[in-house]
Amino acid sequence: MDARQEKELALLVEKLGKKTVNAAVRKVATLPVEVLSWGFGRGGTRFGTYPSGKEPGTVAQRIAAAGKFHKRTGKGATVALHFPWDGTTAKDIAALAGWLKKAGVRPGTINLNLFSMRPTGALDARIRFGSLTNPVAAVRKASVAHGLECIRIMRKLGSDTIVLWLPDGTNSPGQMSFFDQADRLDETAKAICKELRGREKMLIEYKLFEPGFYATAIQDYARSRELCRLCGPKAKVLVDLGHHPKCTNVEQIIAHLVRDGDLGGFHFNDSIYADDDLATGSLHPAQLFRICCTLVEGELRGYQKVNRIAFMIDQSHNIKDPLDEMVESTVNIETAYAKARLVDWDALKKAQDACDPSAADAVLRDAFLTDVRPILAKARET
Amino acid sequence: MDARQEKELALLVEKLGKKTVNAAVRKVATLPVEVLSWGFGRGGTRFGTYPSGKEPGTVAQRIAAAGKFHKRTGKGATVALHFPWDGTTAKDIAALAGWLKKAGVRPGTINLNLFSMRPTGALDARIRFGSLTNPVAAVRKASVAHGLECIRIMRKLGSDTIVLWLPDGTNSPGQMSFFDQADRLDETAKAICKELRGREKMLIEYKLFEPGFYATAIQDYARSRELCRLCGPKAKVLVDLGHHPKCTNVEQIIAHLVRDGDLGGFHFNDSIYADDDLATGSLHPAQLFRICCTLVEGELRGYQKVNRIAFMIDQSHNIKDPLDEMVESTVNIETAYAKARLVDWDALKKAQDACDPSAADAVLRDAFLTDVRPILAKARET
Amino acid sequence: MDARQEKELALLVEKLGKKTVNAAVRKVATLPVEVLSWGFGRGGTRFGTYPSGKEPGTVAQRIAAAGKFHKRTGKGATVALHFPWDGTTAKDIAALAGWLKKAGVRPGTINLNLFSMRPTGALDARIRFGSLTNPVAAVRKASVAHGLECIRIMRKLGSDTIVLWLPDGTNSPGQMSFFDQADRLDETAKAICKELRGREKMLIEYKLFEPGFYATAIQDYARSRELCRLCGPKAKVLVDLGHHPKCTNVEQIIAHLVRDGDLGGFHFNDSIYADDDLATGSLHPAQLFRICCTLVEGELRGYQKVNRIAFMIDQSHNIKDPLDEMVESTVNIETAYAKARLVDWDALKKAQDACDPSAADAVLRDAFLTDVRPILAKARET
Amino acid sequence: MDARQEKELALLVEKLGKKTVNAAVRKVATLPVEVLSWGFGRGGTRFGTYPSGKEPGTVAQRIAAAGKFHKRTGKGATVALHFPWDGTTAKDIAALAGWLKKAGVRPGTINLNLFSMRPTGALDARIRFGSLTNPVAAVRKASVAHGLECIRIMRKLGSDTIVLWLPDGTNSPGQMSFFDQADRLDETAKAICKELRGREKMLIEYKLFEPGFYATAIQDYARSRELCRLCGPKAKVLVDLGHHPKCTNVEQIIAHLVRDGDLGGFHFNDSIYADDDLATGSLHPAQLFRICCTLVEGELRGYQKVNRIAFMIDQSHNIKDPLDEMVESTVNIETAYAKARLVDWDALKKAQDACDPSAADAVLRDAFLTDVRPILAKARET
Repeated sequence: MDARQEKELALLVEKLGKKTVNAAVRKVATLPVEVLSWGFGRGGTRFGTYPSGKEPGTVAQRIAAAGKFHKRTGKGATVALHFPWDGTTAKDIAALAGWLKKAGVRPGTINLNLFSMRPTGALDARIRFGSLTNPVAAVRKASVAHGLECIRIMRKLGSDTIVLWLPDGTNSPGQMSFFDQADRLDETAKAICKELRGREKMLIEYKLFEPGFYATAIQDYARSRELCRLCGPKAKVLVDLGHHPKCTNVEQIIAHLVRDGDLGGFHFNDSIYADDDLATGSLHPAQLFRICCTLVEGELRGYQKVNRIAFMIDQSHNIKDPLDEMVESTVNIETAYAKARLVDWDALKKAQDACDPSAADAVLRDAFLTDVRPILAKARET
Repeated sequence: MDARQEKELALLVEKLGKKTVNAAVRKVATLPVEVLSWGFGRGGTRFGTYPSGKEPGTVAQRIAAAGKFHKRTGKGATVALHFPWDGTTAKDIAALAGWLKKAGVRPGTINLNLFSMRPTGALDARIRFGSLTNPVAAVRKASVAHGLECIRIMRKLGSDTIVLWLPDGTNSPGQMSFFDQADRLDETAKAICKELRGREKMLIEYKLFEPGFYATAIQDYARSRELCRLCGPKAKVLVDLGHHPKCTNVEQIIAHLVRDGDLGGFHFNDSIYADDDLATGSLHPAQLFRICCTLVEGELRGYQKVNRIAFMIDQSHNIKDPLDEMVESTVNIETAYAKARLVDWDALKKAQDACDPSAADAVLRDAFLTDVRPILAKARET
Repeated sequence: MDARQEKELALLVEKLGKKTVNAAVRKVATLPVEVLSWGFGRGGTRFGTYPSGKEPGTVAQRIAAAGKFHKRTGKGATVALHFPWDGTTAKDIAALAGWLKKAGVRPGTINLNLFSMRPTGALDARIRFGSLTNPVAAVRKASVAHGLECIRIMRKLGSDTIVLWLPDGTNSPGQMSFFDQADRLDETAKAICKELRGREKMLIEYKLFEPGFYATAIQDYARSRELCRLCGPKAKVLVDLGHHPKCTNVEQIIAHLVRDGDLGGFHFNDSIYADDDLATGSLHPAQLFRICCTLVEGELRGYQKVNRIAFMIDQSHNIKDPLDEMVESTVNIETAYAKARLVDWDALKKAQDACDPSAADAVLRDAFLTDVRPILAKARET
Repeated sequence: MDARQEKELALLVEKLGKKTVNAAVRKVATLPVEVLSWGFGRGGTRFGTYPSGKEPGTVAQRIAAAGKFHKRTGKGATVALHFPWDGTTAKDIAALAGWLKKAGVRPGTINLNLFSMRPTGALDARIRFGSLTNPVAAVRKASVAHGLECIRIMRKLGSDTIVLWLPDGTNSPGQMSFFDQADRLDETAKAICKELRGREKMLIEYKLFEPGFYATAIQDYARSRELCRLCGPKAKVLVDLGHHPKCTNVEQIIAHLVRDGDLGGFHFNDSIYADDDLATGSLHPAQLFRICCTLVEGELRGYQKVNRIAFMIDQSHNIKDPLDEMVESTVNIETAYAKARLVDWDALKKAQDACDPSAADAVLRDAFLTDVRPILAKARET
């Protein structure tokens, strides 16, 4: 912190009180944020990927980039890994463990990439009809086997969480019966989850569309939650901000998941049109603030603790330098979270109970308009 | 049926077989469709209502129109009623019963219109902060009382179903805590539902937005279903086709509700932009067909029977003559349903299991492209 | 400004330089914002309006409220008026002029409310088939006459701008030919516009849907602009933030209108789902900032001057106190505008030209994250 | 046509009159439909492409598939070509000409694939900052050169139309000024178009988003049309059905383009969520019908002739066999078009002028509900 920031921080303390500001600093400093290994590579679209040549190309390079990120921000202590992308053989996994150690980071969630798995070899394109919901039993079986393999990798690396995002979906009304789709997934998801032991967890992600453009197998949080209930308490819902219909109040969904103890974590990103996977908070910082407020309020009311909910950055860095954009997104998350920690919850509740929405919104606005960069700077020093 | 229609029907029999065609005729003929009393009046928007002067203006006139509709189509044997709109005093209810009898129709679902209820008199505007979720306990209590009153009316009229659509929602992030909103509704919805006895039912409707434009209290089918589970087996989900985010696969939601036995009924209408409440099937007849297919498939797989799911037409007749538009919509529903009954389910399943989506979609397309007007004409004569 | 705000302002000066901060203060202080007379009344939806009893009920009371607003904020020097709502007879207009004077405000834009006009009397419902596009020539003629009447009122009151928002649209594909709709509007819009003289102007507003739910007559900015070109240089496009499809980059549209000199003004409001008409900047403050940035950039590049573009607040105050919400929105506009005036345009351009989007976005973010409340406070004192 | 189809056709003639049915047959038979060379290959998403191994892999194989398509359907007499995909050297082009001839088809539109062009070699990733709008003048120049190269290829192959779809767009608000973006494109698009001679044409396509997720360079038909006007009468607008915000009345846009003589052609496909590129008419056949009705009405009113507007199928065949899905889509287009040719335009106009939307919609519905498969079968024989 330079001299000016010190003055700015002092003014914030004068305005909001030492206790509030210090608490915000501490909360920001201790918020875990996980990065995704693949996210350090150049992202692209179906029209192409345009690497500048400076991006990490190998797994080792991506993990090294994650290490750099961790040093630069203090966040990213854990790194999400994706299989088979981040290795397939025992030797690969051993090497991966080494790179992680060297980079000073720990393995985070273990992600099944069922869409890059090949049931019976490089040319098996049957995966386009589904993985865990494929009409062919052998493909479903191979998909479950991939899940079990990921559990083994998880244990080997010392992680305790797998993430299930499913590429399954259909492109036309006739392709698959909704009933078959659901029956198959109920069975195969359970088959994976029942292998988990002790504190191990499975996060189940939902997605409205893409790569399926008619009906995905886990289309919304309702379906994800039903699957979690079927699988038992080890399964929790994973919310990716870009996976909803566009006119959806995502913070309300989050409130309901938190209230029921069903929220496992987030894939953070931002978007205008579809699952654009842009930098978190770059377009809708106020929505990110509302999401953080919802999480903080849930914690204050005795529901899930914010620090126990996985914060993961899942973006596609198509244009900017991936590391830079990851830092930008992290700062945006910290900014929104710091502001949420400045909210005067008692004043808010009082205004709400008095049917005074003007006063209530003023409380939220006060927090949102505050420039929290001095708080972030202080937290970075902590 | 005139001579040409007889020939067309004969050709259909030649093509599809007598059994299939006759079954479709029978199914269309016995499908119950309920109309809404208010739907016979002139609808409007917040910008105004433009009655031509020929629309039914009084409750008696609307019930008489429902009687005409019933004679003209054979559908509309039951008429949904709305309170306080359709009467408030015991005398009103008695008169209403008389008009229904005279019109040759029976009372259908009994709808709570909490937004036109006034807790303590004509000028009580506190309802704008909510009914069952209002911060003020007295307003919540009055809202529950309105629910109980509707149950009494239901019994007096000899109906067995109440419908809960909630005008509750907020217009800004600060107005109400999601947690309070949910806690209050859990309590008040239960308080109404627990009064139901025997075969009595409550249908709980959800709506993404309007009249609340930030967060409605029952925003989606997930929330509606959670409420139903809380309230017990008498409560079922009511799906209004216009109450979803626009890019949503509604037929998939329906499949999941049917599979779980949670679908209570429909409010049919059509839309492009929002909850436009246009004539059912007038813009998206293929979606209506897919919805009917989902229902038929659910029935064939042993889930809920189509005839036990309430088919209700809930539209706003802003431009056309209300009675004419109600008939148009009914014919559109019958058309979609007849086509769904022509689907060759065995061929469809076979193609699906063989990973042959081209063949599968051809089965659905064959049904959809068939001109079923001769089947409808025959069903009308039955 | 209290002592703390003085210190905050001093820190801003230290950080951004006196010139930049002073310029922002001056720009905010001199930005004209127009309020709409009807906006001081209680808003509602098609489900009902819930006045608390404290809202202005009469025209006189609404103008008095506008006066209060002007005293409280320094903005609202002009008040948009709507006819026939704000008066119909010569006596009404004279009284209106008196109320405006008494309130210390001037008449702003004069708005045609074609949807509340009745061509041949109170019961003429033919307006539901359109006003300027009605199939019946007599209704079109009466609609043009209403436009001419508004021009006369405009002159009588000493205003120089009329606003054309059209309730015309259809609810089904068959109702009206797109070709007839366009032909009629071309003719009638021209008939109104050609009456304008000298510096008089017409702003033409577009709207995607509502009250028409299939096809509105001026559905987008493209159609509005074509009409303006047809009508000549006195006609300009009016952008209402809530009148686009939801996934639309509105700031880009604004850039194109500014670049071509076609932007007449704004109707400000905010929304998530449809034309929700919520408080401007209450949900998407970053979008409002981007819009202001676009306007400022346009001005800096020599296109339209921001102060020559009409800033009008057009919201529906359904829940909060209308006057309070109008103030809230005004502050949100000033906030976004002040931030836009803090952008370091040279640094931004340099980063853009160097293909360095990380640096470019950092420039915008720096401005957006700045707490400009001290600037607003200073501007209020000016 | 088999015996049953003959009977069905006879019944149609009995019902609609010989003249109407014969005209529809003739219109369907003579409707040109163009296919895209790349469309015969396996499509995919950013998550992967899953070729079954049976799809055409080389240019030669894709052209051969186009030949098969032409034989099977009678459509696809012209094949759209994409460069550099379909060849780069003079030798490639000569070979291509040979394959086309052998397949019995002619070259259709020549498509600039600027996103697969590399200004200075395989590793030039600067294209991610834009082609015709790139901040770097050298890249813009190379992009213009690619356009000129395509014009040369066009002439060599004997085609007369190039298609400009632009991958240019930004992923964040700071990346590029809207003003620079527009200025650059105005200049570079003109530079390409001015090379065209005689009857040569350029179709300019617009797209709301993807691969840019903040602001594309040609975001809507308004921008495309402005560019066309700037480029002169050789430039026309290309409408891709999937390139609009989701809640958009596309047929109305088409009507306006046709009315102004600005419509160059279509890229047909279908979608629910984004630019899903599903089989045309597979999800929204009624919308496709309304589009065809708009085109037919435009022709009848003396605007553009349907046969002069390029009908191109632009889909991504991710799941089904590409050839099969291309046939399916073609049949869907023919179906919609045949129905549009059955509309009783006089009756429709009469109902519209009489403010009788129920009667008007009945006219459209009568056409839409008609099973036109006998007409298509007859047309296939023609």
